[in-house]
Amino acid sequence: MSAFVVRTLLDQPHHDGSELYVLERPDELGGQATLRLRTPRGAVDEVALRYLRDGDPCIVPATVDDERDGETWWCVSFPVSNPSTRYRWLLAGGDLGYASLDGLGVFPHELTGADDFVIAPGAEAPDWHSRSVVYEIYPDRYAPSGEPRRPPEWAVPRAWDESPSRGRASATDWFGGDLAGVEQNLDHVERVGANAIYMTPFFPATSTHRYDATTFDRVDPLLGGDEAFASLVRACERRRIRLIGDLTTNHVGYRHDWFVAAQADPDAIERSFFYFDEALPHGYEAWYGAASLPKLDWRSEELRVRMGTVIRKWLGAGLDGWRIDVANMTGRFRAIDLYHDVARFARDAADGSLLVAEHMHDYRNDLDGTGWHGVMNYSGFQRPTWWWLRDPAWDRNIFASETAAPLYAGTDMVEVMRRFRAGVPWDCVLNSWALLDSHDSPRFRTVCGSRERQLAGVGMQFTTPGVPKVFMGDEFGLQGRWGEDARRPMPWRSPPDDLTREYHALASLRRSSDALARGGIRYVHVSDDTVAYLRETRDERLLCCASRGGEPPVFPFPSLEPLYESALFNVWRMV
Amino acid sequence: MSAFVVRTLLDQPHHDGSELYVLERPDELGGQATLRLRTPRGAVDEVALRYLRDGDPCIVPATVDDERDGETWWCVSFPVSNPSTRYRWLLAGGDLGYASLDGLGVFPHELTGADDFVIAPGAEAPDWHSRSVVYEIYPDRYAPSGEPRRPPEWAVPRAWDESPSRGRASATDWFGGDLAGVEQNLDHVERVGANAIYMTPFFPATSTHRYDATTFDRVDPLLGGDEAFASLVRACERRRIRLIGDLTTNHVGYRHDWFVAAQADPDAIERSFFYFDEALPHGYEAWYGAASLPKLDWRSEELRVRMGTVIRKWLGAGLDGWRIDVANMTGRFRAIDLYHDVARFARDAADGSLLVAEHMHDYRNDLDGTGWHGVMNYSGFQRPTWWWLRDPAWDRNIFASETAAPLYAGTDMVEVMRRFRAGVPWDCVLNSWALLDSHDSPRFRTVCGSRERQLAGVGMQFTTPGVPKVFMGDEFGLQGRWGEDARRPMPWRSPPDDLTREYHALASLRRSSDALARGGIRYVHVSDDTVAYLRETRDERLLCCASRGGEPPVFPFPSLEPLYESALFNVWRMV
Repeated sequence: MSAFVVRTLLDQPHHDGSELYVLERPDELGGQATLRLRTPRGAVDEVALRYLRDGDPCIVPATVDDERDGETWWCVSFPVSNPSTRYRWLLAGGDLGYASLDGLGVFPHELTGADDFVIAPGAEAPDWHSRSVVYEIYPDRYAPSGEPRRPPEWAVPRAWDESPSRGRASATDWFGGDLAGVEQNLDHVERVGANAIYMTPFFPATSTHRYDATTFDRVDPLLGGDEAFASLVRACERRRIRLIGDLTTNHVGYRHDWFVAAQADPDAIERSFFYFDEALPHGYEAWYGAASLPKLDWRSEELRVRMGTVIRKWLGAGLDGWRIDVANMTGRFRAIDLYHDVARFARDAADGSLLVAEHMHDYRNDLDGTGWHGVMNYSGFQRPTWWWLRDPAWDRNIFASETAAPLYAGTDMVEVMRRFRAGVPWDCVLNSWALLDSHDSPRFRTVCGSRERQLAGVGMQFTTPGVPKVFMGDEFGLQGRWGEDARRPMPWRSPPDDLTREYHALASLRRSSDALARGGIRYVHVSDDTVAYLRETRDERLLCCASRGGEPPVFPFPSLEPLYESALFNVWRMV
Repeated sequence: MSAFVVRTLLDQPHHDGSELYVLERPDELGGQATLRLRTPRGAVDEVALRYLRDGDPCIVPATVDDERDGETWWCVSFPVSNPSTRYRWLLAGGDLGYASLDGLGVFPHELTGADDFVIAPGAEAPDWHSRSVVYEIYPDRYAPSGEPRRPPEWAVPRAWDESPSRGRASATDWFGGDLAGVEQNLDHVERVGANAIYMTPFFPATSTHRYDATTFDRVDPLLGGDEAFASLVRACERRRIRLIGDLTTNHVGYRHDWFVAAQADPDAIERSFFYFDEALPHGYEAWYGAASLPKLDWRSEELRVRMGTVIRKWLGAGLDGWRIDVANMTGRFRAIDLYHDVARFARDAADGSLLVAEHMHDYRNDLDGTGWHGVMNYSGFQRPTWWWLRDPAWDRNIFASETAAPLYAGTDMVEVMRRFRAGVPWDCVLNSWALLDSHDSPRFRTVCGSRERQLAGVGMQFTTPGVPKVFMGDEFGLQGRWGEDARRPMPWRSPPDDLTREYHALASLRRSSDALARGGIRYVHVSDDTVAYLRETRDERLLCCASRGGEPPVFPFPSLEPLYESALFNVWRMV
């Protein structure tokens, strides 16, 4: 059975956006792209590439570039005219008859463009990102430096070993972590194997999640203020750890300077930053109807000036990029949709620094290579992995109002992952965060229910196309049944299950491998309980295999050198 | 076998945009939609609707609305916030376990949004259109009135019974049909059963296809000029025949007033109407690189003013709508993409009159309910029908640079049709033109190769969701191996195969049936050689069955009243 599956999958024609298949990609519009397709020898007689130019399909016949190892490599060049150029392959003759091949695979009929491959000149993220392992720090809960702080009135002090409150009260839970605490514990980030930190917001706010900023001009004094930030930046630079901030482009807090000015004076320029409308419940549009989170109106030119200043100021002060909060809703309100405008504006303002968007549903049309470099990949990585590896008892989908959660066969998981990679520029796939959880979701350990399954998930997280983003505490086997519950302070003294060494091993493998950072992906075995795939560059070929139990498949590859071994996840180098 | 297939398909949960499933649709943003889903009784325990609001997914649980005939009807209401609001259904429990249901059907895993259902307040086309049968007239080739004309220098007179020239010369073939000829032969339009005419361009030009207009201000004198147009309009009005014009929004002819002014004076306002650039081959961007077809630059405000005037002027003069030429490329050039802007602008200018866009590939994201009312459905109707009914010898795809043409099983055809209906507002599905050919494609009769197969295709054309658009001469069994070859003059004296009565029978059925105009569609049988489907409203239920040979299926429906019968296509009323 497994040998059959292996042969079937590798015997499919294949293309993806990696260097084996994209020989040349233009940096600018009008330049040439040179692409290749591999097919089993004799499978097809004719290959052509179909791409869009200014909204019109164009066809270019492919020629045979190489024939070796039972495969034919087809090659084609064409001019790339548009920032996000969609293409697919047309095959004919041989064993296949007629076929179209897009990001989802081979079909015997014409296709819509939804799952086309996408080539996007200028979609590249900063080079360091795809080779990184990102560690997410929620600063109030990582580590307190012990420096004395006078909490603001709204803050409710909590002891480090308490659990976060439920519901609204959790926003004002103050556990007392701070930036100096982060700086003092950078060793731990390195022990996990990470070389980049994504830190949730550090601006002053009226909560400890800080997604309700009162200003973007300075660092919250409760975290140690601008000096502590500058010191943390220097410490990260010394260790070559990248630092990514967190910006709310969709809304601000109701005590934000801009909103206060807008409310105080109807003639204030800041009035144009918000959707004031007496017909709305609070007199203005607010995120999820929360009066404390007025939504920003990106039709305002002055808002763009101000936000551009914010983006640049903190990159200048030492950040290497921004995670963009609620990106999927930014600029969208009723008949207004300035989403792509805002993403392109932010891309320009960031001037080469990293931008990763929060996006919890179908990000594909929202990720076209002209705006954000990537997304937090809840849709194409976290959820499919969860629904394959979940504990049988974890049967509700917290991402969908607690409706029933699916329990996937391996084929379902791979299908969903492939669907969310199709229709997206390859660079955006590589620069999206493969995450198993975050401060906004239950902990993966709670969902999967065991150390072995956690490591199977983490194994995929570190070897699937995308940048692994680890939420602090996952390496300690931390639990959490919902978003706020997952924001438990770091259990430094008594980790429930210390997996730091396993994370480090996988992170080291990930950071040392071009194939894991930028290689293509081909599945070699997909069954109910086991999924195996190759990650490949010209010079490196890794075989990764994740399982949730059952017999491992027999791979027909002659020499495999083990690189990582655990009960349910293995990696080999093919030599 | 067939009984099994019938049961399987009807036993699927089903939703579409028709009145059985959309009980309430708001006319304006903020209003409520009320939707229903039908499921086999016991198939699911939980149903919820997932829709997008301002870029964010929202979930609403559904309640049981009705239980009858072995089915459960689930119902849900939600506010529609955005002009094009996407939704799908989440099902759980019962026989299905977990499932998502979008426009493509039921899946055991999460989906991207590409095939979501779409509800679009204000997407409605003018009411008359969905109940119409459209007859396409190419005025130079329909009928000459015999009025004396002095042809312009470029025109090359041809005899009525000659074939069109090959290649470029075909543009200047002048056969001498005119508007008075159309008017004198309106009886024939009615004999075919049509009640609307789509007429290719009537503006002065330097060709007889007239897609290279020299002005939009008057009717070509070669066709009889403004007076002949006014007379034709009056004649159509008397017969209650609607008249649809043809406008090029992508380009004009190089002798167009605007382009002449732009070339004469670099400071002319018309200079902004075009993409002048010395680096381009002709010094300006031209459609398909043809110097005679300068492309319009929709960044120009003045262009919008002028084009708005054109759109309104001819609607005021008696047109009921416009077919928009090369809509898919309009407003698109390199990094500029004003497509949706232009479509919305045209929709506003047309002020309730019909707009149908030429679009030969994936129109789904381009047809969101805010712009054109529909498209010429080459992708979702013509090609899938061709590739199922084609003559085995017709094995090249003229729409894809003569690459290999597929030969579909019925399942492939239905799959492609369903893919192109998914992700599009239902109104846009209903108001797109179901066509088998046009002045831009080979004749269907040539492709399918027989009278019987032609009638199978025509049967589907008149009964599939969409408005049938017949190209003049199809009813005479006219042949044509490529676009220009299909533009043969009407063979009034000796039609190769007169099918007028069959067209009339199907057109009468189509025009008398609410279910065919606006009803939902459910497939009851899909096999290699036979496809059967129901078209349903609350009060009417028609069973349609198309075949390319083989044994007909046995339908388990007790009483069927035949409404149309031919060798390979049948329609029954279910009573």
